[in-house]
Amino acid sequence: MSEHPRSIIAGTEADEADVVAATSAAVEAFGAYRATTPGQRGDFLEAVAAEIEADKDAIVEAAVAESNLPEARISGEVGRTTGQLRMFASVVRRGDHLGVRIDPALPDRAPMPRADIRQRHIALGPVAVFGASNFPLAFSTAGGDTASALAAGCPVVVKGHPAHPRAGYLAAAAVTRAVEKAGLPLGTFSFLLAPGGQSSIDLGQSLVTDPRIKAVGFTGSRGGGLALVAAAAARPEPIPVYAEMSSINPVVVLPGVLADGDVTALASAYVGSLTLGAGQFCTNPGLLFLPRGDAGDDFLVAAGNAVAEAVGGTMLTPGIATAYEKGTANLRDVSGVRIVGQGSDGGEHAPAPLLLESPTLTGVTDEVFGASGVVVRYDDVADLLPHLESLEGQLTATVHANDADADDAARLLPVLELKVGRILFNGWPTGVEVGHAMVHGGPFPATSDSRSTSVGSLAIERFQRPVAYQDVPSGVLPEAVRDDNPWGLARRIDGELQLP
Amino acid sequence: MSEHPRSIIAGTEADEADVVAATSAAVEAFGAYRATTPGQRGDFLEAVAAEIEADKDAIVEAAVAESNLPEARISGEVGRTTGQLRMFASVVRRGDHLGVRIDPALPDRAPMPRADIRQRHIALGPVAVFGASNFPLAFSTAGGDTASALAAGCPVVVKGHPAHPRAGYLAAAAVTRAVEKAGLPLGTFSFLLAPGGQSSIDLGQSLVTDPRIKAVGFTGSRGGGLALVAAAAARPEPIPVYAEMSSINPVVVLPGVLADGDVTALASAYVGSLTLGAGQFCTNPGLLFLPRGDAGDDFLVAAGNAVAEAVGGTMLTPGIATAYEKGTANLRDVSGVRIVGQGSDGGEHAPAPLLLESPTLTGVTDEVFGASGVVVRYDDVADLLPHLESLEGQLTATVHANDADADDAARLLPVLELKVGRILFNGWPTGVEVGHAMVHGGPFPATSDSRSTSVGSLAIERFQRPVAYQDVPSGVLPEAVRDDNPWGLARRIDGELQLP
Repeated sequence: MSEHPRSIIAGTEADEADVVAATSAAVEAFGAYRATTPGQRGDFLEAVAAEIEADKDAIVEAAVAESNLPEARISGEVGRTTGQLRMFASVVRRGDHLGVRIDPALPDRAPMPRADIRQRHIALGPVAVFGASNFPLAFSTAGGDTASALAAGCPVVVKGHPAHPRAGYLAAAAVTRAVEKAGLPLGTFSFLLAPGGQSSIDLGQSLVTDPRIKAVGFTGSRGGGLALVAAAAARPEPIPVYAEMSSINPVVVLPGVLADGDVTALASAYVGSLTLGAGQFCTNPGLLFLPRGDAGDDFLVAAGNAVAEAVGGTMLTPGIATAYEKGTANLRDVSGVRIVGQGSDGGEHAPAPLLLESPTLTGVTDEVFGASGVVVRYDDVADLLPHLESLEGQLTATVHANDADADDAARLLPVLELKVGRILFNGWPTGVEVGHAMVHGGPFPATSDSRSTSVGSLAIERFQRPVAYQDVPSGVLPEAVRDDNPWGLARRIDGELQLP
Repeated sequence: MSEHPRSIIAGTEADEADVVAATSAAVEAFGAYRATTPGQRGDFLEAVAAEIEADKDAIVEAAVAESNLPEARISGEVGRTTGQLRMFASVVRRGDHLGVRIDPALPDRAPMPRADIRQRHIALGPVAVFGASNFPLAFSTAGGDTASALAAGCPVVVKGHPAHPRAGYLAAAAVTRAVEKAGLPLGTFSFLLAPGGQSSIDLGQSLVTDPRIKAVGFTGSRGGGLALVAAAAARPEPIPVYAEMSSINPVVVLPGVLADGDVTALASAYVGSLTLGAGQFCTNPGLLFLPRGDAGDDFLVAAGNAVAEAVGGTMLTPGIATAYEKGTANLRDVSGVRIVGQGSDGGEHAPAPLLLESPTLTGVTDEVFGASGVVVRYDDVADLLPHLESLEGQLTATVHANDADADDAARLLPVLELKVGRILFNGWPTGVEVGHAMVHGGPFPATSDSRSTSVGSLAIERFQRPVAYQDVPSGVLPEAVRDDNPWGLARRIDGELQLP
């Protein structure tokens, strides 16, 4: 067990004892932390953002060195991370996530009087967060899962990703400074890190099976996510796991937009999204449905040329590059698959981007993390729908359409809705806006729990549960549900929403 | 496979083929049913209520005969069931459960424009509902789980409880008449029933593991619920299970109320709640914490006397009566446990009510379904809190307190909040109001998923998930998220709630 006198942060050698120390401290912190007012909690989230900004240069330097991602991208990710924290602060201050409902007493109701019943949502308890490899900041130590759990009132124990230990540690130190300055218990936030490989897997399992942990946030591979889901389900007390796992993000190009638009520009934009950041996005467009015919052929040639000009970027880790090479080799071996275009490799662990065409979906629907895509041709929407219906759950689906495609698009929408968390038109799925309406989620296996999102303010509600208070005396009632509404919350009175 | 020409309703011999027929029909119905407008769906839910009322006499007769519950109770349950359907109809018409959020495009935002992003919640898909033994109507075929799933837009396949096949069948027939009159696909609702025992368990397993089923609602025993949770988690595509399972519903009597109140009346009211309906309620107050000292002694003597005067009611099934006898025998064998009072048995399968006192919680915290309670004494709140902290999750916690107890009550509240779904003061937990603020849920093992409730309008949200629409052309957008707001919904615009 490593020693960190002023906090529970454990360096690169965290072990079982650190897990117990961190989760025990989280339990001790829970009472005080969940009792913070909307103002106090909002202040704290903003302070976390400020502390990250105060150490931005060092964080960016560490993350660039550890991830091979360009400085502009990492710098932007810092902005995304701090913006997310500040947005969640504003949501917490408004307090709508508390979901207050009041059904006033009806003492004269016949045949039975109605009691006074009030509802609010409370925090679930300490949350384990698993940082992602591909977003060393925005989906990691102080990223979306951590920000939403803290916003909900849950202490957080982060298992840092071994691919970016220093960036994770610096972000954790920033959160811890904010915890200390706010006078919150140190157990409000802890950071644990193992050297990687089996020790990292073991640390994660210890964390998820610790009885003090009440929910899990995870972004990563399907194998990793499913292992945590299984561990959580096998606990004496099962807990929710929000694992964002795998997606090939189908894109449908409809005939009208091909007939009428700039096919070369569209193909080039597609390849731009496919190869962005070496294709290391959960929302990478790995599967594209293209009409048969001349315009589709033109698109394919243009896309092949664009891929041929692309140079592979250095991937996040050597292991990820190896998995990409293996995954693309498997795809190429699928019967009937042909290469549409192949880029050049960009040096060590920077494998070449690849675009393939497949006659069917058989064997080409498993996610290959990186800059590889598969094109499948179709005759018309009647031919396309069974393809879409056969897909597993996805984070996103993209439709390229113009006015001439309106009828086809309307037929696609209800099918796509049942498959994905986000449907977008005439854009590319890479780039996930942090907003109130965003859904970064979707049916299994895109995530382990489709009822939520890991990006956007709805994510806060994942880490809460409702509690009802029946005839509780006003002096004992929590502030959120008192008649005088001291926090100025929107409330549902007898089922009807009322603004403050 | 039984033949039911006009619907999928299968009589008392449903088998695997019926499961496939029902779930396939549910999938076929899903598109049309989830596309119903708030008005259409509200009309349908109200029609279900009307059809149940139209056959009320026959339903009550069947349920009384099958459940051994008194006619007044069953008649009240019909009212509860139809009232619940009508209330959910009103919620659906209002449409707040759709959770509409709109983040308008910001084309001029720097450095990157923001897309137009809209969110609504959609139905998960076909839901399997397992009727409960103890509420042949309100928690069964057309009960809360069915009503909330239908309100959410999910087709429902009910596995009827073998303890009340005729009442279940008649309720199912009423729902089916409403389906037909509304012109909805017959697969919107199906009812399956097995003779009981292993055949019933097998039917349930087939239903939960059918890939077309997307969520499960269950009310029943911990063993039964956990078996469904395990089956659902082991599916290739795991699905949510809302199992309401077991609870002993702790009651805390604080010293002030004992010192000042009518101890005999309080004890009598407690025994009334304990023995109501032969104690066959999920919310039966099975554990009571009582101050040591003279007033507590007086309460205990009065409660013992009240129990001694109570006569056992005929239980729902012979098996339930046998389980009660076994459970109370186990309790009596726990070291240090003594009998405070014992009633008389009321004939066959009508075992005697029983009140015990135990020096500790060891061995007395497993639910015994029926009219048995355990009293544990305490010195003061400091002595009481560790007891409460050691309890498993519960549906309810009850506090009896007066003004003199205010400080103690305030110390209890945050501890109880983390253990239960509903906290009530100076009442009894039996009797669960169907309202907007009700929570009939709680941490494991009270339920398998604490993030929801199985009673009240919040229950609708269990069967939904969010979907985001990014830059979707207005002609293709679902009505719920259109700018002109044709359904007059409350919406969150840029994070701010706006009423219609």
